[in-house]
Amino acid sequence: MPPSVFIVSDGTGITAETFAHSILAQFDQKFRLVHVPFVDSIDKAYATVQKINEAVALDGRRPIVFTTLVDSASNEVVKGCNALVLDMFQTFIEPLEHELEIKSTHAMGRVHQNADTEEYKNRIEAINFSLAHDDGQSNRNLAEADVILVGVSRSGKTPTSLYLAMQYGVKAANYPLIPEDFERGKLPTPLLEHRTKMFGLSIDPQRLAEIRNERRPGSKYAAIENCRFEINEAESMMKREGIKWLSSTHKSIEEIATTILQEIKPERPSHY
Amino acid sequence: MPPSVFIVSDGTGITAETFAHSILAQFDQKFRLVHVPFVDSIDKAYATVQKINEAVALDGRRPIVFTTLVDSASNEVVKGCNALVLDMFQTFIEPLEHELEIKSTHAMGRVHQNADTEEYKNRIEAINFSLAHDDGQSNRNLAEADVILVGVSRSGKTPTSLYLAMQYGVKAANYPLIPEDFERGKLPTPLLEHRTKMFGLSIDPQRLAEIRNERRPGSKYAAIENCRFEINEAESMMKREGIKWLSSTHKSIEEIATTILQEIKPERPSHY
Repeated sequence: MPPSVFIVSDGTGITAETFAHSILAQFDQKFRLVHVPFVDSIDKAYATVQKINEAVALDGRRPIVFTTLVDSASNEVVKGCNALVLDMFQTFIEPLEHELEIKSTHAMGRVHQNADTEEYKNRIEAINFSLAHDDGQSNRNLAEADVILVGVSRSGKTPTSLYLAMQYGVKAANYPLIPEDFERGKLPTPLLEHRTKMFGLSIDPQRLAEIRNERRPGSKYAAIENCRFEINEAESMMKREGIKWLSSTHKSIEEIATTILQEIKPERPSHY
Repeated sequence: MPPSVFIVSDGTGITAETFAHSILAQFDQKFRLVHVPFVDSIDKAYATVQKINEAVALDGRRPIVFTTLVDSASNEVVKGCNALVLDMFQTFIEPLEHELEIKSTHAMGRVHQNADTEEYKNRIEAINFSLAHDDGQSNRNLAEADVILVGVSRSGKTPTSLYLAMQYGVKAANYPLIPEDFERGKLPTPLLEHRTKMFGLSIDPQRLAEIRNERRPGSKYAAIENCRFEINEAESMMKREGIKWLSSTHKSIEEIATTILQEIKPERPSHY
């Protein structure tokens, strides 16, 4: 029976979950995750304690509880449960209050940008932009793009573009490099004036063949020789054109996106 | 001059950034964020300390540093800087080691799913599914969907579907409710057999008119009377058909997604 881990939050719990995930990944051990979002009243805090204490009996051991409760009273209630409580909030708020010499607001639901803010609208606009400029669908407003990803079909451009838009509000277009481009030996014409915003994705040919075979089994498109050819041509072109690129083979979307931001440095809000 | 905040990580820094964001949102104060990802060697740790200490002179005050460094030696180096260091990692790893009676692995780069894992492939598959089933584009394989979002045009279905796929690996289709559906007084036929997976998004008509006017200024589509009519019809239909729904007007994508997961409860990996 893996230990139970409760993620208790007064909001979505996404911050707590992201953090718990990164901490728990440090243990060679399975865990059973239980999400308890929207704990925004004392009653819900008591109900949560009951749920946690029931797990003690079921599991035969104390659970682990990650909390990000802003309200001190609810937080005190939850801390009364029979578990190892890792209080992510209080632990850091107090030293910060001391350092900044101001009190925290203890306002709930501050984590995610409110749907009415300018920043939030920018993010939605970036998602729409990235969708409209997926896979070279449109050359309109390419000048507005913060980043233009290039690479052969199925090298990871679409998820990366959407992640950049969703997470960072970065307008990320993506453009495929196709056999016709390799024959001409030139980048697609609409991209030529945007070289400084371009970033390339490559991928191991073997892996590319696997991915393409899932879509179109046995096709020339998916054949290993064709994948080798396309990757070889694409990498040569990127080198020749001075475009920075990376291999997506063993990287997560998050790692690819972070690397691109470091290299291209689009404007991002650094104050808030 | 707002205080400088350094986000120091041996990986992407996304966990640290998410967490710092939620903590700093508790202070009515602007901050200047500096991202220092991929600090995966002692040399880079020393370079980071230098960067932090330079900020002391520039700002005339100590910066705040959020760290998630797995490597103890690098962590010790960074802790030697002249700043308030909030060590998110060590703070929680030690009590966990004690509770679980096992040592943590101290392995770097464990946070994001490796591109070779099954879970990661599922996530990419979910993103592709959600893209292919955006805005009622395809009725193929709707049975495979975990969630089907419905609502009038521009009620927030697309960003929510993509977020569910990207963050949770949930296959989220979305389907528009259009004037023809209201005339017939029935849900679109392809959806009828999938009622248990459906979730509705509504929105304040005034807000909807604003959003639509940005796309098609002065159109009937964007007119406030038309928006009122569509929203009224859509909400009546959802009530009549027993479909759970919420208003997206003042909610972030994250809040909408979390609520949907609570209501629809698609299968999600709860062990890892």
